[in-house]
Amino acid sequence: MSWNTFGRVLRFTTWGESHGPAIGAIVDGCPPGIALAEGDLQPFLDARKPGQNKFTTQRKEADEVRILSGVFEGKTTGTPISLLIENTDQRSKDYSEIANTYRPGHADYAYDAKYGFRDYRGGGRSSARETAMRVAAGAVARKVIPEVKIIAYVAEIGGDRIDPANFDAAEIGRNPFWCPDAAAAKRWEALVDETRKAGSSLGAVVECVATGVPAGWGAPIYAKLDSDLAAGMMSINAAKGVEIGDGFEAARLTGEQNADAMSPGENGPEFAANHAGGIAGGISTGQPVVCRVAFKPTSSILTPVASIDRQGEATQVRTKGRHDPCVGIRGTPVVEAMVALVLADHKLLHRGQTGR
Amino acid sequence: MSWNTFGRVLRFTTWGESHGPAIGAIVDGCPPGIALAEGDLQPFLDARKPGQNKFTTQRKEADEVRILSGVFEGKTTGTPISLLIENTDQRSKDYSEIANTYRPGHADYAYDAKYGFRDYRGGGRSSARETAMRVAAGAVARKVIPEVKIIAYVAEIGGDRIDPANFDAAEIGRNPFWCPDAAAAKRWEALVDETRKAGSSLGAVVECVATGVPAGWGAPIYAKLDSDLAAGMMSINAAKGVEIGDGFEAARLTGEQNADAMSPGENGPEFAANHAGGIAGGISTGQPVVCRVAFKPTSSILTPVASIDRQGEATQVRTKGRHDPCVGIRGTPVVEAMVALVLADHKLLHRGQTGR
Amino acid sequence: MSWNTFGRVLRFTTWGESHGPAIGAIVDGCPPGIALAEGDLQPFLDARKPGQNKFTTQRKEADEVRILSGVFEGKTTGTPISLLIENTDQRSKDYSEIANTYRPGHADYAYDAKYGFRDYRGGGRSSARETAMRVAAGAVARKVIPEVKIIAYVAEIGGDRIDPANFDAAEIGRNPFWCPDAAAAKRWEALVDETRKAGSSLGAVVECVATGVPAGWGAPIYAKLDSDLAAGMMSINAAKGVEIGDGFEAARLTGEQNADAMSPGENGPEFAANHAGGIAGGISTGQPVVCRVAFKPTSSILTPVASIDRQGEATQVRTKGRHDPCVGIRGTPVVEAMVALVLADHKLLHRGQTGR
Amino acid sequence: MSWNTFGRVLRFTTWGESHGPAIGAIVDGCPPGIALAEGDLQPFLDARKPGQNKFTTQRKEADEVRILSGVFEGKTTGTPISLLIENTDQRSKDYSEIANTYRPGHADYAYDAKYGFRDYRGGGRSSARETAMRVAAGAVARKVIPEVKIIAYVAEIGGDRIDPANFDAAEIGRNPFWCPDAAAAKRWEALVDETRKAGSSLGAVVECVATGVPAGWGAPIYAKLDSDLAAGMMSINAAKGVEIGDGFEAARLTGEQNADAMSPGENGPEFAANHAGGIAGGISTGQPVVCRVAFKPTSSILTPVASIDRQGEATQVRTKGRHDPCVGIRGTPVVEAMVALVLADHKLLHRGQTGR
Repeated sequence: MSWNTFGRVLRFTTWGESHGPAIGAIVDGCPPGIALAEGDLQPFLDARKPGQNKFTTQRKEADEVRILSGVFEGKTTGTPISLLIENTDQRSKDYSEIANTYRPGHADYAYDAKYGFRDYRGGGRSSARETAMRVAAGAVARKVIPEVKIIAYVAEIGGDRIDPANFDAAEIGRNPFWCPDAAAAKRWEALVDETRKAGSSLGAVVECVATGVPAGWGAPIYAKLDSDLAAGMMSINAAKGVEIGDGFEAARLTGEQNADAMSPGENGPEFAANHAGGIAGGISTGQPVVCRVAFKPTSSILTPVASIDRQGEATQVRTKGRHDPCVGIRGTPVVEAMVALVLADHKLLHRGQTGR
Repeated sequence: MSWNTFGRVLRFTTWGESHGPAIGAIVDGCPPGIALAEGDLQPFLDARKPGQNKFTTQRKEADEVRILSGVFEGKTTGTPISLLIENTDQRSKDYSEIANTYRPGHADYAYDAKYGFRDYRGGGRSSARETAMRVAAGAVARKVIPEVKIIAYVAEIGGDRIDPANFDAAEIGRNPFWCPDAAAAKRWEALVDETRKAGSSLGAVVECVATGVPAGWGAPIYAKLDSDLAAGMMSINAAKGVEIGDGFEAARLTGEQNADAMSPGENGPEFAANHAGGIAGGISTGQPVVCRVAFKPTSSILTPVASIDRQGEATQVRTKGRHDPCVGIRGTPVVEAMVALVLADHKLLHRGQTGR
Repeated sequence: MSWNTFGRVLRFTTWGESHGPAIGAIVDGCPPGIALAEGDLQPFLDARKPGQNKFTTQRKEADEVRILSGVFEGKTTGTPISLLIENTDQRSKDYSEIANTYRPGHADYAYDAKYGFRDYRGGGRSSARETAMRVAAGAVARKVIPEVKIIAYVAEIGGDRIDPANFDAAEIGRNPFWCPDAAAAKRWEALVDETRKAGSSLGAVVECVATGVPAGWGAPIYAKLDSDLAAGMMSINAAKGVEIGDGFEAARLTGEQNADAMSPGENGPEFAANHAGGIAGGISTGQPVVCRVAFKPTSSILTPVASIDRQGEATQVRTKGRHDPCVGIRGTPVVEAMVALVLADHKLLHRGQTGR
Repeated sequence: MSWNTFGRVLRFTTWGESHGPAIGAIVDGCPPGIALAEGDLQPFLDARKPGQNKFTTQRKEADEVRILSGVFEGKTTGTPISLLIENTDQRSKDYSEIANTYRPGHADYAYDAKYGFRDYRGGGRSSARETAMRVAAGAVARKVIPEVKIIAYVAEIGGDRIDPANFDAAEIGRNPFWCPDAAAAKRWEALVDETRKAGSSLGAVVECVATGVPAGWGAPIYAKLDSDLAAGMMSINAAKGVEIGDGFEAARLTGEQNADAMSPGENGPEFAANHAGGIAGGISTGQPVVCRVAFKPTSSILTPVASIDRQGEATQVRTKGRHDPCVGIRGTPVVEAMVALVLADHKLLHRGQTGR
């Protein structure tokens, strides 16, 4: 079945295929009275291309978003906010081959098995193009949680990790990898370049930290904050794993090593560590919320891969020409957006039930 | 806020605190005409204690589940199925200390921050006792998907992994660890025993494989099968990470290594590998659905950990007496149950929209 | 399909068949910290038998409700509240006839057409027995909206209407009809008695007024307050019509006659009239919320009615022995409960999005 | 709060204000493989102006709908269908007066009380303009239920009723009132004209009949078919009452009069009458589904009505110039659309749980 709405109180619905006339999103449940204009969203869309300063005016390649409803005299009315981006890049390609072939690792075969047929152009609805709308909707969500600051960055490419000791937030916007470690960024430049020339691809791990989240957000038992974060991030194209706090590393620690000891503090407890990643029992503790997403390497590589066509006959699939050797990098602003959407939703959920 | 319903078409709601009179669950949306009786559920509850044969008659320690509605003349009526387990083990403990203290790593502080106060006895609603109802509800879900076989097992304890070459499904029920590798089970016996004597605790990784899932289940974009699996598993107590297929390892493979090449087969394509874990684009491909959950080590250890009390004053918390050194093991039947519930839900979702 | 949950933030789920061991409800999303005990709910269940003082101690015939979760030290914890009533009245009747016959006007045929078979004893899930749980859940909801006062009464039986000029709220609890007009109650006594002796049945109209509802509750466009009220009331057994304010009479007024003119007041506007029934554009205006439900006459009458059996053969159905000649009367506490549940839900919805 | 999605499996979300750049709707959950093009929707939008043949090419005044996603090669893909209508009629009016005044009977005051401020131009989100999207979405829904035929018509204006004996379906499209009784249409012409000249307004009652609905649709207990129909219709602007079958008249019948006797038939039972309006126990019986909506007279009349302004000061409101004396008439295509949407949703719900 098709289910294109995410969220419980602050709900957003996306629509649009890669090669349709446009893509869009509706954000419903946004509180009224919040200042909102295209200028609040566009920078995040511009930043989808790594390496560019968020406030650049060079927008030719970026998608231009329009707000078609839900805002009046510069402020949200509380009614649904419709966002739309026109698909201006309508390249007329010869799709006859792709139409009849299932690319391994992509959703082609699965979509056909489910629906009976699919819009095969550029991946149709399964294309990563849809994530542009998540970024736009995420920008709206950030306005609902101005007290929260969210930063995502690439922590690992092809098994090569950043060194936490070299962490510099300002570095994130200065290289094409959203990498907070200048030395790692340099290594990655060579690695990715090498991979591109070889016609191969690499996976990546994106980490996201949200600070300023107060204690108390999250709705046990089946709308736990970590549960909703996991769902949001696993829904991103190419995502194969999700962690909160120490994640799989926590499974390798002892109880003593994993403890987040508490001591008295001015505004709530002071924590000696944050192995939990800011969430305990599915509810935020006031510590930074830390999560991580693993992205697999794209299957669109120059090396031929055995596959089948729609008639079930053996064939081979290979990408021609220029390809993106590490799609996971582009997941970074999408991860930020999903975290923003989940946190904003939970702020409203919490307020609804407790009045706080 | 409180949100205790999981699922979209096949929906289950749990209720009950650790020290209340009972715990229960409602399963709503179950198709009519399915044979169902307590005997279909009880073995799964009995099996929550590892090492026991599922069909044992020694049920004294296990919880006895009753079906109070939704079944008539031995078959489901299509109306809500109410399950109830009485809390017979009402130990009168002295809770004054726990009432006033926040145990680090548990949900105590977070619940108080959210709700203003909490039922502190045995963890109240945050207790793992709730998972008994998931296991019972999961047993109902299995009846909806008789074509699917689900097996979960512990793949790793305290960093010590099973060897896939030694995998023997029959071994799973023969040791106290749901371990499919006899050699690993032996090592773990020593490791866990050692840890218990030291008053410490270990984490674990549980893996689950579902075979017989046809291609086509999953509802893009925000009810993707992997998304809902991630949510379901992250909602389990102590879960800190979730993987589908190769998970975080996929992020360290190249495109060539990660490819699941396809070739013609009799019933749909043959796959050369299953790095994707049976899900592509959020929809099942017909391959085994493989997922993994990381459980952190329990914070209930004999070593004192610094914490604060309800007045914000410094204090120390330590567990007294006998403790469970590896709670992650007990997550195994719960993981199976959540996978069953998600798959059954998706079978009905898919049928609703496509008629298939 | 089966869908047994009502509400969006304050959600309740009912379960249980007429002749199963018990019936119950889960109320999820209730704010924490509200004083709640069986004594808050029992009077409303006792009052399901009209004519009895709400605080009577003669409870033998009434159902005894137990709170099994969600309350600690006398206050709601914010976790799900499980309510249960045991079906103690297990009369062993000979159901062979009913099992094989479809009673016209009841849900028998429709349930079989939908599910393939049904629990036919006493109407199974379609029985009005389920409404006891609505009344219990409604009592919980009232605690969420202490600022609101809700009164329902029978306004019409068999076409005979109350005279608004004779309205006396105190009269409602003094006669077996929840009638606020003593003269009408007298007429109805004769009318209903007459109907019972004739083996026939009558319909009824129940009116409900909620005062103290502030302006602003309701969520356009598809969770309008009047929309949710209509859904809640139409879901009651035997309901065939719903009105807000003047309802169908409004369709017969002119714009001048229907106007609710406003003038300055101390706490918001003063209204010259309330044709709108307290709701405009789907949002409460601060005026009393007025709604009305039409209940059809029961089909369980002594007069034989032509019908068919499960094999499709012609047969006749007639009720034997004592029957209830006006089931609509019993809808009165159920209408109050549904109004309470909808209003409480909307209070939380409104607070969630606007913070007010 | 804002809640702009309707439906459970086939869900549609509308957006857009009266004087924003556009209005739109997303239809999600539509089965794949259904032929769909603008030509399937446009006639229903054209028909919003009564008196015009559905297949007219004179579309200047009607809104032109575009399908922006969810359709490929002429068939639905199963992904969300985005519909958009541009607001071309951007009259620059002087809104200063309306901005500061609350029109009685409209949603103005209620929206301000809820959100703190509102888009006052032409009613903003509360405007009937939104119903154009319901009509478009309803046209999509009809494609999901080709077996069902839905006809709505005005049954009463200002208390003057049609005569069922004069019922002629073909007459509906021949007069400006969607009236199936030629004699009534004549009377209404005079009545409405008179009312317009007097600067007054009238209410109306719209009736809708759906034939071809099989037995079994509807999801007890809280997604009963009549419940969802009531919610859908009560959500239409100016709706004040909803009836199923005999509605309030049923409350005035005896059990004998209201009985829908059954006898053996070829395809399921034959019914002697249809007082129930095709729904029993919340599930369709196979009989025509009959429902009715009461629309109040518009408050936009030439007669001044006392009101208050935003500062709480006394003022008067009167509509200037041309006004619509009976807005209820325009509810007719909207009622059809909501009935189509509810029935299509229930077809999929039923199929999801029962496989039928």
